[in-house]
Amino acid sequence: MIRGKGRVNLELALRMTEAAMKQAFREGAAISVAVVDEGGNLVSFQRMEGAEVSGPTLAPGKAYTSVALRRPTSELPALTGPGGELAGLAGSGFVCFGGGIPLWSGYGGAAYVAGGIGVSGGTVTQDVACAEAAASVWASR
Amino acid sequence: MIRGKGRVNLELALRMTEAAMKQAFREGAAISVAVVDEGGNLVSFQRMEGAEVSGPTLAPGKAYTSVALRRPTSELPALTGPGGELAGLAGSGFVCFGGGIPLWSGYGGAAYVAGGIGVSGGTVTQDVACAEAAASVWASR
Amino acid sequence: MIRGKGRVNLELALRMTEAAMKQAFREGAAISVAVVDEGGNLVSFQRMEGAEVSGPTLAPGKAYTSVALRRPTSELPALTGPGGELAGLAGSGFVCFGGGIPLWSGYGGAAYVAGGIGVSGGTVTQDVACAEAAASVWASR
Amino acid sequence: MIRGKGRVNLELALRMTEAAMKQAFREGAAISVAVVDEGGNLVSFQRMEGAEVSGPTLAPGKAYTSVALRRPTSELPALTGPGGELAGLAGSGFVCFGGGIPLWSGYGGAAYVAGGIGVSGGTVTQDVACAEAAASVWASR
Repeated sequence: MIRGKGRVNLELALRMTEAAMKQAFREGAAISVAVVDEGGNLVSFQRMEGAEVSGPTLAPGKAYTSVALRRPTSELPALTGPGGELAGLAGSGFVCFGGGIPLWSGYGGAAYVAGGIGVSGGTVTQDVACAEAAASVWASR
Repeated sequence: MIRGKGRVNLELALRMTEAAMKQAFREGAAISVAVVDEGGNLVSFQRMEGAEVSGPTLAPGKAYTSVALRRPTSELPALTGPGGELAGLAGSGFVCFGGGIPLWSGYGGAAYVAGGIGVSGGTVTQDVACAEAAASVWASR
Repeated sequence: MIRGKGRVNLELALRMTEAAMKQAFREGAAISVAVVDEGGNLVSFQRMEGAEVSGPTLAPGKAYTSVALRRPTSELPALTGPGGELAGLAGSGFVCFGGGIPLWSGYGGAAYVAGGIGVSGGTVTQDVACAEAAASVWASR
Repeated sequence: MIRGKGRVNLELALRMTEAAMKQAFREGAAISVAVVDEGGNLVSFQRMEGAEVSGPTLAPGKAYTSVALRRPTSELPALTGPGGELAGLAGSGFVCFGGGIPLWSGYGGAAYVAGGIGVSGGTVTQDVACAEAAASVWASR
């Protein structure tokens, strides 16, 4: 669980985005990065040169989904398939594979999801690495 | 007509966004700013603290609409109202009031719309002023 | 009422599209042209170089709407406004301004709408002229 | 990887469509063929007599998906199924089985996806064969 404090604001969203972008350069991937707030509403979005045209759909979708379900989207393929606990969830704004990470705030019973980050454009492994780089900014400040 | 050159990229989108944000501070408005490319696909989005939760819908919608119709969205209320030439266009992704401005590239017969900017969150007058501040970056570089 | 005979097929759709395109060249407009069948389903679509990115939405929308309502979409602004018989229809696939024309087949009580043509990209006047050029192919064969 | 040069335009889209249609006749299949540009926006669409009414959804969807994911949609069933890396992607505009092929332009680091072709209506094997016939026009000009 990625745990930080306070709420997501634009300045922080841009710092997280920058960290994701730096990781993408290391990965050799062209990505889109979305940050949403606790309401699941978009705070910032950036699409690199050459990144997929579906980035504006998938990156915010992963960020939203991570907030909505309060877990990394990388955990969802095992849950959303046939017979799974969340069978058939994908679609209609939910993007249910790796690249989305919820940002927790506070401790213990007072912890809540303050926002989420979503990355799309590389392989899923690359997307997850970029999202984790962004989330580490949240956790370390 | 806002005329510049070349294509929209992320670096330029962020500079335009910064100009819109500065104007918003002068206006005392809390806004969202979207930049789309010539295909109408989102390149960047930023929502200031306190800006409306509908910004992620309205700002990209204005930017898209300005590209789709190749005119500032401030011209649309006169056309899309009851009995107007484009009556009922609003909705389904089209946002038909001020705050969207197309970004033209090239000259004469070779001119094309290279992207668009959309601002939402203030009054329409404020949104237009912020979008124009962003567009002036496009025109002056 | 544009009256012809038989059903819409691809070969005929392409001939109607060609007529619309020729009219667009005369008008100096860059357009998209859609032809739908009696089920409102797309048969053909063409978007000229430089035509708006919303053409894939608006041209099929006008063609569909003309079939659904069995009248030219140019008649709709007067009907879809506040207090109008079809108030608020626009949106969700209905495009309610000029550029869509239904293609009638047969005579008298046996007449039915066999399809529709939709044009978008120029001014509404240009779109209507292009759609009429296409419809004249339907009527004259 | 289907590699060509330049951008997709209407004339080229129609030539690719013709090649797909000819292959469909050889296959004895009734198909729809869509071509989209680098922004994922439809350039042309044609549906043969007798082809499924869902062609207008599936063929553009395959073309869009091939551009968005920069790979043939025939590679997707293994990735989007239960437990797969892209589990649940299908839907919301993504069509994740064979018949979509991205069209690459340029070489090496400057290569980019300039558009995509999508075919639907036959068996998946037939759709893929028709899409490949279209893509060969892109590669050989």
